[in-house]
Amino acid sequence: MWGGRFAGGPSEIMAAINASIGFDRRLHAQDIRGSRAHLDMLEAAGIVSAPDAAAIRGGLDRVEQEIAAGRFVFKPELEDIHMNIEARLAELVGPVAGRLHTARSRNDQVATDFRLWVRDEIDALDAALADAQAAFIEKAEAWPDLPMPGFTHLQNGQPVAFGHHMLAYVEMLGRDRGRFADARRRLNESPLGAAALAGTPFPIDRGMTASALGFDRPAANSMDAVSDRDFALEFLAAGAMTALHLSRFAEEVVLWTSAQFRFVRLTDAFTTGSSIMPQKRNPDAAELVRAKPGRLLGAFTALATVLKGLPLTYGKDMQEDKEPTFEAADSLMLAIAATAGMVRDMEPDPERLREAAEAGHPTATDLADWLVRRLGMPFREAHRAVGALVAEADRRGVPLPQLPLDAMQAVGAGIDKSVYDVLSVERSIAARTSYGGTAPENVRRAAAAARERFL
Amino acid sequence: MWGGRFAGGPSEIMAAINASIGFDRRLHAQDIRGSRAHLDMLEAAGIVSAPDAAAIRGGLDRVEQEIAAGRFVFKPELEDIHMNIEARLAELVGPVAGRLHTARSRNDQVATDFRLWVRDEIDALDAALADAQAAFIEKAEAWPDLPMPGFTHLQNGQPVAFGHHMLAYVEMLGRDRGRFADARRRLNESPLGAAALAGTPFPIDRGMTASALGFDRPAANSMDAVSDRDFALEFLAAGAMTALHLSRFAEEVVLWTSAQFRFVRLTDAFTTGSSIMPQKRNPDAAELVRAKPGRLLGAFTALATVLKGLPLTYGKDMQEDKEPTFEAADSLMLAIAATAGMVRDMEPDPERLREAAEAGHPTATDLADWLVRRLGMPFREAHRAVGALVAEADRRGVPLPQLPLDAMQAVGAGIDKSVYDVLSVERSIAARTSYGGTAPENVRRAAAAARERFL
Amino acid sequence: MWGGRFAGGPSEIMAAINASIGFDRRLHAQDIRGSRAHLDMLEAAGIVSAPDAAAIRGGLDRVEQEIAAGRFVFKPELEDIHMNIEARLAELVGPVAGRLHTARSRNDQVATDFRLWVRDEIDALDAALADAQAAFIEKAEAWPDLPMPGFTHLQNGQPVAFGHHMLAYVEMLGRDRGRFADARRRLNESPLGAAALAGTPFPIDRGMTASALGFDRPAANSMDAVSDRDFALEFLAAGAMTALHLSRFAEEVVLWTSAQFRFVRLTDAFTTGSSIMPQKRNPDAAELVRAKPGRLLGAFTALATVLKGLPLTYGKDMQEDKEPTFEAADSLMLAIAATAGMVRDMEPDPERLREAAEAGHPTATDLADWLVRRLGMPFREAHRAVGALVAEADRRGVPLPQLPLDAMQAVGAGIDKSVYDVLSVERSIAARTSYGGTAPENVRRAAAAARERFL
Amino acid sequence: MWGGRFAGGPSEIMAAINASIGFDRRLHAQDIRGSRAHLDMLEAAGIVSAPDAAAIRGGLDRVEQEIAAGRFVFKPELEDIHMNIEARLAELVGPVAGRLHTARSRNDQVATDFRLWVRDEIDALDAALADAQAAFIEKAEAWPDLPMPGFTHLQNGQPVAFGHHMLAYVEMLGRDRGRFADARRRLNESPLGAAALAGTPFPIDRGMTASALGFDRPAANSMDAVSDRDFALEFLAAGAMTALHLSRFAEEVVLWTSAQFRFVRLTDAFTTGSSIMPQKRNPDAAELVRAKPGRLLGAFTALATVLKGLPLTYGKDMQEDKEPTFEAADSLMLAIAATAGMVRDMEPDPERLREAAEAGHPTATDLADWLVRRLGMPFREAHRAVGALVAEADRRGVPLPQLPLDAMQAVGAGIDKSVYDVLSVERSIAARTSYGGTAPENVRRAAAAARERFL
Repeated sequence: MWGGRFAGGPSEIMAAINASIGFDRRLHAQDIRGSRAHLDMLEAAGIVSAPDAAAIRGGLDRVEQEIAAGRFVFKPELEDIHMNIEARLAELVGPVAGRLHTARSRNDQVATDFRLWVRDEIDALDAALADAQAAFIEKAEAWPDLPMPGFTHLQNGQPVAFGHHMLAYVEMLGRDRGRFADARRRLNESPLGAAALAGTPFPIDRGMTASALGFDRPAANSMDAVSDRDFALEFLAAGAMTALHLSRFAEEVVLWTSAQFRFVRLTDAFTTGSSIMPQKRNPDAAELVRAKPGRLLGAFTALATVLKGLPLTYGKDMQEDKEPTFEAADSLMLAIAATAGMVRDMEPDPERLREAAEAGHPTATDLADWLVRRLGMPFREAHRAVGALVAEADRRGVPLPQLPLDAMQAVGAGIDKSVYDVLSVERSIAARTSYGGTAPENVRRAAAAARERFL
Repeated sequence: MWGGRFAGGPSEIMAAINASIGFDRRLHAQDIRGSRAHLDMLEAAGIVSAPDAAAIRGGLDRVEQEIAAGRFVFKPELEDIHMNIEARLAELVGPVAGRLHTARSRNDQVATDFRLWVRDEIDALDAALADAQAAFIEKAEAWPDLPMPGFTHLQNGQPVAFGHHMLAYVEMLGRDRGRFADARRRLNESPLGAAALAGTPFPIDRGMTASALGFDRPAANSMDAVSDRDFALEFLAAGAMTALHLSRFAEEVVLWTSAQFRFVRLTDAFTTGSSIMPQKRNPDAAELVRAKPGRLLGAFTALATVLKGLPLTYGKDMQEDKEPTFEAADSLMLAIAATAGMVRDMEPDPERLREAAEAGHPTATDLADWLVRRLGMPFREAHRAVGALVAEADRRGVPLPQLPLDAMQAVGAGIDKSVYDVLSVERSIAARTSYGGTAPENVRRAAAAARERFL
Repeated sequence: MWGGRFAGGPSEIMAAINASIGFDRRLHAQDIRGSRAHLDMLEAAGIVSAPDAAAIRGGLDRVEQEIAAGRFVFKPELEDIHMNIEARLAELVGPVAGRLHTARSRNDQVATDFRLWVRDEIDALDAALADAQAAFIEKAEAWPDLPMPGFTHLQNGQPVAFGHHMLAYVEMLGRDRGRFADARRRLNESPLGAAALAGTPFPIDRGMTASALGFDRPAANSMDAVSDRDFALEFLAAGAMTALHLSRFAEEVVLWTSAQFRFVRLTDAFTTGSSIMPQKRNPDAAELVRAKPGRLLGAFTALATVLKGLPLTYGKDMQEDKEPTFEAADSLMLAIAATAGMVRDMEPDPERLREAAEAGHPTATDLADWLVRRLGMPFREAHRAVGALVAEADRRGVPLPQLPLDAMQAVGAGIDKSVYDVLSVERSIAARTSYGGTAPENVRRAAAAARERFL
Repeated sequence: MWGGRFAGGPSEIMAAINASIGFDRRLHAQDIRGSRAHLDMLEAAGIVSAPDAAAIRGGLDRVEQEIAAGRFVFKPELEDIHMNIEARLAELVGPVAGRLHTARSRNDQVATDFRLWVRDEIDALDAALADAQAAFIEKAEAWPDLPMPGFTHLQNGQPVAFGHHMLAYVEMLGRDRGRFADARRRLNESPLGAAALAGTPFPIDRGMTASALGFDRPAANSMDAVSDRDFALEFLAAGAMTALHLSRFAEEVVLWTSAQFRFVRLTDAFTTGSSIMPQKRNPDAAELVRAKPGRLLGAFTALATVLKGLPLTYGKDMQEDKEPTFEAADSLMLAIAATAGMVRDMEPDPERLREAAEAGHPTATDLADWLVRRLGMPFREAHRAVGALVAEADRRGVPLPQLPLDAMQAVGAGIDKSVYDVLSVERSIAARTSYGGTAPENVRRAAAAARERFL
């Protein structure tokens, strides 16, 4: 019977739904950091005396040590991390501990702690993303001219350099870092001192605590300061977009390591075996990375749904902000690390890539471009002419570069044998020297520029 | 530095992203149940000898005892619950343990375990929902004729009986139970014996294991059996709709316990105080219930995103199915229990409710209906006439029942004093005897019928 | 300047955000159907006289004709479909038209109309899904024994019959139809007569209107009847799951038509060309089907978000229910039709499929099973032994069936040449005769059974 | 039968699922703008001759005029806006029109058009948000010291100034504008010239087209340029957060205009009547704004789902980017305009607000703060003492400011009559002079600062 879960009746149910210590204990370091800054300010403002401040400071040190040593006992009946630390502080230093909560409330306290946590996480993710960019850049530098198929619709469109493909992800992750940086800048206002919701009559110095905690300034409106969870939402939105980028690469790794593609090979470090099919080498890490947008998107959806239609200021609904954010951050960090690992681990198969790049007349566009440039055909007419040549090549069962000149001339009398110069995949790649194009010289230059911009 | 998180390099990253034992240990009971059914069948089919089966059976008993006693050591390096149990079994009974995995694979094993878990959870949720329905029915029986405002747009539309309002939720939760029941019926097919994906050459009896595990039948297609996660998705969708219903009631509790409404009162069992504002009695439980659709909707979104575009059959992506489902189930169970608790805890304030029910000319529709029935006016004309009378009453600053007869007759010469019979909220409520309407006799009958239908 | 969009000021903004006629005109047929049923009942109950009823009935016929003929002028200033039809009716038949709105409200009217629309759509989708199942069954019947790789992790796991793979989708779509059928059954209660929210004092017969409109019964609680949008949510949830199934198949079509797989070929009917790459044949339809879960999941998210935390009964928020539902239904219908079309259009390439099925030692599991059955090895031991043989085969560069007997015997002295009988893909497939397994006889039987169950 | 929808068979299905002209015609202005910039560059680079360029330019002018005049015939068989315009251009100027498509592809063309559209929309939304901020600032300036309850958990926590509450939304919308501005900056790279995916061999000048179209620079990687839809996702994420802010205010408007609150009054401009309850004045606009996060969140979910796991580069899946984005932008613009309208329309009721602000001992915190400051109690002890006084006041049925001094002294002997100075709501508000607090002088200063920062 379900009731068995809550044998203790209402009080047990209430405790179970209300307590957050099971997850918000992750904020312990931020909570202590915030308390120290608040305490220093209270002392400087003359609100707490020097001896009292010293006693409390010593208590906070001991709490910190107990947590670090795993000796701290987190108690569900104290609900959350703030009350757990405060209660332990009172045990350690006596009633004077109660002075720490002067001119603040759990509302501004949790807003401060959680912002600090998200900010720390952004810093860690930024470093991880930079490392993943480095991995892609290294691969681009290693393979600036290896031909591979450039797909649209998973059909070979035009040949590209393997390194060029790698650099596409450097751009994506660069935008991701930009989004996290913007989110960090925007979140970097201190709610501390907003108190419950209205500010406080104590002569506090919010600029001092803001500065001590590395915030750019205090938040300008106390009601907004305790109601706002934009910083978590924006973090999750940026994370969801990052996860989507990683999922696109992960899908490519799954494809590329399949027997049908064999474009790259992963070592045992990033594959696993099967319990029943001994021959399998499964790209498990790539599949898990491919799946991660679910978690991130789910977390964003969860928090957005919670906030919809909430009147100001703090409502207990907002306690649902942390678990999705914690899980999303952990998932994303893992996905980035696994991606960087896979990029470094994977070895392209030049032969397979070149062979695939040559299949399906991928230089047809080059031929059309040649007709435009040399014979002055309008592009649309050239496009139709090449369509006919491709059909002819298929009829003869030969690739386009092997179609005889007379067959070529059937669609354009002016075609001469110099046309064959543009029909190899190497020439096709080398010719695309427009800015941002796949020519090997571009790839080398772009990789160097990416190092400058991002690392 | 982020790198510090994965100091061990690729192998540590891979282990961290790959291991599921941190969460899938919750499937231990289902895993053992499934193994026993499989073992019995292997023995009955002559695939495993009686002595071997007995040895394995004894080993499974000991594993079960170790887990129950908290002595079982779950090892991350063994990845998941299946390998953890299998490995321990091998330690306990030796190589014969390896016979248990004959004619099955982790693919059908995890599909079986997870289905059983979801089915167990549906059963628990059904009981919890029935209990919540009981709480609403009790409240309806206690207050079948207490007038309160019937809101549309949070504006008083027509008076209703408090009990009638309660029974609206009985209907919603009834549909929720129906959805869970349908999901249960649909999931109740056994994947066991689908093996990796293609079935097995062993002469197994899938009907026997299906039956032993309470499934209605074996799943008809082995590839579908190991690829399918509909049962989890459908569970989450049903759960999201349930959570939405609960959030609507929770919003009402938040409103009703505000100083502005004071329609009901909750005891300390379901309210909490404030760290800085000593006078507050906050409806925390209601706010948390109001927030829970976020978690459920997030979980559905997460799993749906994972499954989008996955080719058959099993992909490691699907390992992302469990955490969202576990959390969603826990959240939902808590929300239902808290709702049932709040319903039983709350006490309506008859005076406040009646007063609110009378504000704003709520019997204007009754007047319009009277004009239609007695004077034969088309409804639209009556509607306009009543609009004029309401404006007149507002001009005079009186409620509609106190508007003098001559003022009434200004819009309809045939109006006589019997019109006042329909203008009290009690008469308005009592008059709504159409099936499903709010008349007290209906409420009593509907409550009794609900007991029949649902409890 | 943005203001230019709303030059008319508040009234223009209000009209723009408030009007629904731009989309709810799609409910016109259901609105007229509902009005006819309501009118017949009002007449039968003596609430509207026979001559008045006849006049209104004639007016409704003319409105219907005008809409069918495209002559009806929908007016935004009349807000919604209900008022548009009612106003036109009044023009056509005079004030008597106003009698039609007796004992009903827009709240129960729109709930009725929208339920009827969703029900109609479910019926259309069920037929479309049955047709798609028929297409998969036909393909299964055509190819019951064609070997292809059975993938897990997009790695060849075990060979399966092409027809077996097709039938996996028949199961999925069967569950989808079941969910729609359950949703239909659950929605099939009539809100008509709930009036604004509280029922009505008129002596109406809700059973009569329910029956005339094909509902199973009247909804039991008037407040629930006008507040409930479960039927739309459940429809969208079922649709999202259907779209996910279709996206999995669509992904396979994209893969299978790539140059790397070439497992199947689509004709020009379901591929398109490129504006710049003349040789391309892009699986556009498959890609669009793959994308459709976005729309469905977005619609479910949208409506769920709207309903979160809404107090009873009707709120204008609920007007946001229709656009997402309409678009989702249209998208899903297209995706099903395109899927059925692609299934019928696609032609498997037997040679490519067989070749792919043989790559990567896919009968390794068969070998392990043989060791268990013939030599009595525990499965885990057999698994390890086969792993060694696969490694040996790779070292020699031969497929497993060509590994010499002495190499085989290195891991099991008792291995004799009968082992080679299980190592071909045909034998592997044929051997999997367990219920639901891929053996051709199973596929034929399952296809026949599917015709029975579903068509 | 569903089939009736697609009587024409596969070709009709394919056309229906494939065509985008029904919605992407909204990009016509951006498409022509892009074509002009491309043409100027082709001419400057000598790729198209001056006479040809002039001819095409004239054709583009005529196309633009035809669209403006409503004479342009959009043809579904030409699929999308790009081919519709190109085809018409060819009709108007002959084969020379085909030269316009030199060195570009639909892939970079649509990416350019859609970016330009989103950028235009951001500019319009920024202006609308600034106007909404202005409305909130005006209200704050009008009511800098009107007391109202400051809610947490919808319980009166501490009194605040009405203007302070208004300014909270100015902060939120300021962050929203910041997010849109960041998104604009990030999207402002030109994809034009990336061609199909690999760049082009023509000597194009991407810097010139970028500059002509107002982009900051050309996108650095051609594959990323055609695969990227971050700009739409980020736009939708920013929009979802904006919609959430508006929904919080809308909820407040719904509450505040209810009979239970009566904090503010809206005119008829932003309320509507009822078809059956003539006395109702429904806050429809507020409810619709409250609902809008559904549409925005749904759109973000939809597009994110589409992009999950897509391999590079362009896939037809990405055609699903536009409809959600268009609808989301329209919905958001309406919601912002309606919000600004409501803010300006609403009139606070000073008497009701003050009365509500005084209910429930809202200055209890002030009393606790007094005990800390004057008697030197630790805050926690003061908190407990005040709890006892609140209970005592409730026992006596008086508000805290009317509790006699002897009762006060029961918890603190040193309490003197100066304590009553802090117990009025005006004094409470005036005392909160900490930065960001609700003191009227702060509100005035903050409103002035907000004008500086935002308008």
